[in-house]
Amino acid sequence: MTATTAASSSEIDALIQQFTWTADGLIPAIAQQHDTGEVLMLAWMNQESLRETLTSGRVVYWSRSRQQLWRKGDTSGQIQKLIECRVDCDRDCLLLLVDQIGVACHTGRRSCFYTALRDGKAEIIADVEIDPGKLYGA
Amino acid sequence: MTATTAASSSEIDALIQQFTWTADGLIPAIAQQHDTGEVLMLAWMNQESLRETLTSGRVVYWSRSRQQLWRKGDTSGQIQKLIECRVDCDRDCLLLLVDQIGVACHTGRRSCFYTALRDGKAEIIADVEIDPGKLYGA
Repeated sequence: MTATTAASSSEIDALIQQFTWTADGLIPAIAQQHDTGEVLMLAWMNQESLRETLTSGRVVYWSRSRQQLWRKGDTSGQIQKLIECRVDCDRDCLLLLVDQIGVACHTGRRSCFYTALRDGKAEIIADVEIDPGKLYGA
Repeated sequence: MTATTAASSSEIDALIQQFTWTADGLIPAIAQQHDTGEVLMLAWMNQESLRETLTSGRVVYWSRSRQQLWRKGDTSGQIQKLIECRVDCDRDCLLLLVDQIGVACHTGRRSCFYTALRDGKAEIIADVEIDPGKLYGA
């Protein structure tokens, strides 16, 4: 699908080894909608999830709360297609340019960053676009 | 300067207490150029740096390597003016909409995310805009 996915496993492994991983073996990943520039969320990846993301073209995180791979959208259908993966100067943070299907946030909002600090108060600045009950079959 | 900075210290303290801080007392903060949408960098804040950022209108991080407040731009002049601070649904990550003076990256590039993974290789996709020697007086 993308240039990234044309890489071989050994090439990807060599790249991944150069990154800086936390003591828990993780790296933070920012997801940004590739065409609008909207920052959607931040989540974490381990080496396995990054490898799968780069080879499959679909974003997979590591769920710290569930301690398992989190193939985003498996439950909700709100998957993220990888357009490009970038790494920062310290190689300890990823920027994922994605095409987000539907909404990124479990609250049914497009972005997880829907709360602004204004005048010393937390203000909700984005509407729910999809009923979370429909996303998770509640 | 901004609506955020009009808040009182007690209001800001009350907000900050609601956030989720790591065991080390930190929270990751993504800096995004407010008008272009470019993601510039990710760094970390402690409560003191966030409080100063919200009250002064200038972005201050916590340097994990130096274990001290990092008033971005003190050495290089490349400061970040805070336009708005947002927090995510889990309240464990910040999105800072900023006006970046000059460049965000210590390499002299506008963004720290100047390396793309393409065809299994790390490819530099942004030019150096300011000689790092000029930024740091080397």
